[in-house]
Amino acid sequence: MDKNQALKLVRPHLNQTRYEHTERVMQTALQLAKIYHVDQHEVMIAAIFHDYAKYRPLEEMAQIIKDHGLPSDLLDFHHELWHGPVGSILVETELGIDNQAIKEAIFWHTTGHSQMTKLEKIIYLADYIEPGRSFPGINLIRKKAQESLDEACFMAVKNSISFLLSRERLIYPATLNMYNHLKRKMEELN
Amino acid sequence: MDKNQALKLVRPHLNQTRYEHTERVMQTALQLAKIYHVDQHEVMIAAIFHDYAKYRPLEEMAQIIKDHGLPSDLLDFHHELWHGPVGSILVETELGIDNQAIKEAIFWHTTGHSQMTKLEKIIYLADYIEPGRSFPGINLIRKKAQESLDEACFMAVKNSISFLLSRERLIYPATLNMYNHLKRKMEELN
Repeated sequence: MDKNQALKLVRPHLNQTRYEHTERVMQTALQLAKIYHVDQHEVMIAAIFHDYAKYRPLEEMAQIIKDHGLPSDLLDFHHELWHGPVGSILVETELGIDNQAIKEAIFWHTTGHSQMTKLEKIIYLADYIEPGRSFPGINLIRKKAQESLDEACFMAVKNSISFLLSRERLIYPATLNMYNHLKRKMEELN
Repeated sequence: MDKNQALKLVRPHLNQTRYEHTERVMQTALQLAKIYHVDQHEVMIAAIFHDYAKYRPLEEMAQIIKDHGLPSDLLDFHHELWHGPVGSILVETELGIDNQAIKEAIFWHTTGHSQMTKLEKIIYLADYIEPGRSFPGINLIRKKAQESLDEACFMAVKNSISFLLSRERLIYPATLNMYNHLKRKMEELN
């Protein structure tokens, strides 16, 4: 599947704003892939389809979580966390994308988890810092992303947890695992 | 065991500052026990011995964690988190305190966890807000502690996680579980 085919396939599943976001995530992710020597084609496909399931009805997403043995605790957290795992299923069942690395990158792009692959980190980070995003401190993360994937991901996940705390929202355990894991990894390197 | 016997038993294990802290935790906890109808004697004993293991050598604490089947992931986190679980063992093996509710309150007083008992919440909270403590926002938590044990504990654990994040320190998963659990419980009540 080439870029134009992939964009054509995802287009009907997104509104205009989300489609433009997807294009920017793809561009950002491809740029990171070059720096960190990650397969360009896998990065491109994962980025294009990362929000594939974003606009599915909540009932459909909940059913897919149950039917496909996705982590059932997802249902106890905000439905914003569902579209990654559900998307990783739907890209295979509807589009035939069965590359495990790509599916995992789609799965974990919102929550993160411990032991992320470079591909997963690139999609997570690109989604966070693409040029359309704007929040305090984002330029520091963009700068760090050019130097260290782990440190930039750490800044992003720390920022995410802070944001959720400040809003007194639930925090998914895998997101904390990502934070703790990256913190330990950075300590070992220093 | 009465109050004076208990204080006499704990005294040699604490320095003067920590002993005075323990007395204040006891007074604060007993006051909360009255408001929330929790057994005064259990609260008193748990409060007096909550820091019983605080000054044990790190090697001894690590060995007890291994030998007694305490959660081994504790060893991957800051040793500040060890003295609660280790204390819950030592008060039994050294002092014969085998009351499970008291031991659990000692175990979880630093990290918290989901599904805490009222006794556990009282020790956690009293340790956090005793009159010797001072940090921004503490008076709001003290005030809330007179009205709702769950809401005050939520404020305390939210504050703890924020503090650890701001210092970029590891966060123990059980602490996040406490936060998420209390958040859900408060949502259900509103």
